[in-house]
Amino acid sequence: MTAPRPITLALVQHPCSDDGAENLQRTLNGIREAGDRGAKLILLQELHRSRYFCQHQSTREFEQAETIPGPTTQHIAELAGQLGVVVVASVFERRAAGIYHNSAVVIDGGRGIVGVYRKMHIPDDPGYNEKFYFTPGDYRDGQAGFEPIDTSVGRLGVMVCWDQWFPEAARLMTLAGADLLLYPTAIGWDETDDDEERQRQRDAWETVQRGHAIANGIPVAACNRVGFEPAPEPTIHAGAKDTAKHAREGIRFWGSSFIAGPQGEILAKAGTDEASVILATVDVSRNEAVRQVWPFLRDRRLDAYEDLLKRSRH
Amino acid sequence: MTAPRPITLALVQHPCSDDGAENLQRTLNGIREAGDRGAKLILLQELHRSRYFCQHQSTREFEQAETIPGPTTQHIAELAGQLGVVVVASVFERRAAGIYHNSAVVIDGGRGIVGVYRKMHIPDDPGYNEKFYFTPGDYRDGQAGFEPIDTSVGRLGVMVCWDQWFPEAARLMTLAGADLLLYPTAIGWDETDDDEERQRQRDAWETVQRGHAIANGIPVAACNRVGFEPAPEPTIHAGAKDTAKHAREGIRFWGSSFIAGPQGEILAKAGTDEASVILATVDVSRNEAVRQVWPFLRDRRLDAYEDLLKRSRH
Repeated sequence: MTAPRPITLALVQHPCSDDGAENLQRTLNGIREAGDRGAKLILLQELHRSRYFCQHQSTREFEQAETIPGPTTQHIAELAGQLGVVVVASVFERRAAGIYHNSAVVIDGGRGIVGVYRKMHIPDDPGYNEKFYFTPGDYRDGQAGFEPIDTSVGRLGVMVCWDQWFPEAARLMTLAGADLLLYPTAIGWDETDDDEERQRQRDAWETVQRGHAIANGIPVAACNRVGFEPAPEPTIHAGAKDTAKHAREGIRFWGSSFIAGPQGEILAKAGTDEASVILATVDVSRNEAVRQVWPFLRDRRLDAYEDLLKRSRH
Repeated sequence: MTAPRPITLALVQHPCSDDGAENLQRTLNGIREAGDRGAKLILLQELHRSRYFCQHQSTREFEQAETIPGPTTQHIAELAGQLGVVVVASVFERRAAGIYHNSAVVIDGGRGIVGVYRKMHIPDDPGYNEKFYFTPGDYRDGQAGFEPIDTSVGRLGVMVCWDQWFPEAARLMTLAGADLLLYPTAIGWDETDDDEERQRQRDAWETVQRGHAIANGIPVAACNRVGFEPAPEPTIHAGAKDTAKHAREGIRFWGSSFIAGPQGEILAKAGTDEASVILATVDVSRNEAVRQVWPFLRDRRLDAYEDLLKRSRH
């Protein structure tokens, strides 16, 4: 029998304004509330220090990038140390001149920073110009890439946002012994889409991640921002009428942060419109029991998977 | 612009008795009804000719195995030819003395059999003793394995049941150009599980497959059997009290056959208790539009996926 290993996990969902100090304060308030309510592991949303600046392409935005450790991790580490909690934070990282990353930083109470994950899959579509800003995370000879981070509460499969759509990433973290998967996120609606399309998109976002939980027998949590953020510079792509949207007004981030268990069952879920701190206790020792009943890892056809390393089989 | 390619797809869900002739008649009636209602592609449930005999291990069951082509495919091909429809059937295949497969056969109207898929992932857990009966499908030097089958209605990503839990399989079929994924299935509840566990299991089954649709931008359909089938020989595993269930009474197959679109949205769904033929029209040309908006295939990190070919990264 595996000894129970309950982890009380909190997600801090909030809106962001143009005022970085205010955003940081919201984050710190959320961490404190989560700690007061008994959380030992706290997941923050993607790029919680600022507006989601990737709505446009501007070199001015690089001024916000910071080192790891740096001011944001310093503030969070101080509070995490006081509370004795593990925090997964999100930082626009300046690694070198011309090398910036979208990074998740794991801070383990008084131990400080115990690991950094650099977003591996980088999106780029209208409103999400991430390839302009972020160098993809490294992987070489088995180093970095999809590598869990060990903490006092467990082995964390930390990834970031766009990674959450890739079953490969969830599988690799599971095979490396992650206890649960954690995704800081920034995703929302384009207001020119109709209600049905919006519903399909949010459902798809939740469903594909619950799918990772099920396929791997592992809890999954995603923390998303909330609220409307106007587009800094509306763009009309003249000459591409068939596919370009009308001038984008901004993104309405859909919140809906959630925690799912290893059968994909929803344990806690935030609303679409308001700041909130949600909690659930997940017993990660149950992963093994679930995998004994649904032994997918036993039956993978390694001999027939080699084409997963190809772009296309055509 | 991609020209619309609508496919009207039907799923034939029914119970099975000990009478093989009666089961075949139910299948043929379902195919006829589907054809009359306008279906051009018809997906049958797993092993529709018989009870789900894998509830126990008995060499007597091998007497039901047949060749491809054989009696079952002959009956279905005759009707498919009359109706001018593509049928995905399921056969307990005898390939050679000692080599049996759980096979899906694609019959394309008057052209007859155009392809066979042999189940690649084989389950084995209480009530589903498939490793006793079925040799896993072959794969060698890029041949067989997860290979779509071309038909007059499209390129079909045909797999079978347990395969539906593996994101790797769905991805490989997509990368090989499948237009949609099709799973004949036999899955149900153990009556000793409580209602909550049953609900979690069925939700998980649907969710993981909708997840494949989303992650790949591809429609997915699963056709499951329905009704209670008693266990042929109840077994009590004395001496393993901690993990063995009490004497299994049988399986209540949960039906719930469904068709989902390329964003994972449910287009049609059958009930849990009764025989039914459900239909939906999927425009597979929409896959490309969905993949342009959600370009996951563009961003896969091939350089960091090599460990997917390992059993464990420990």
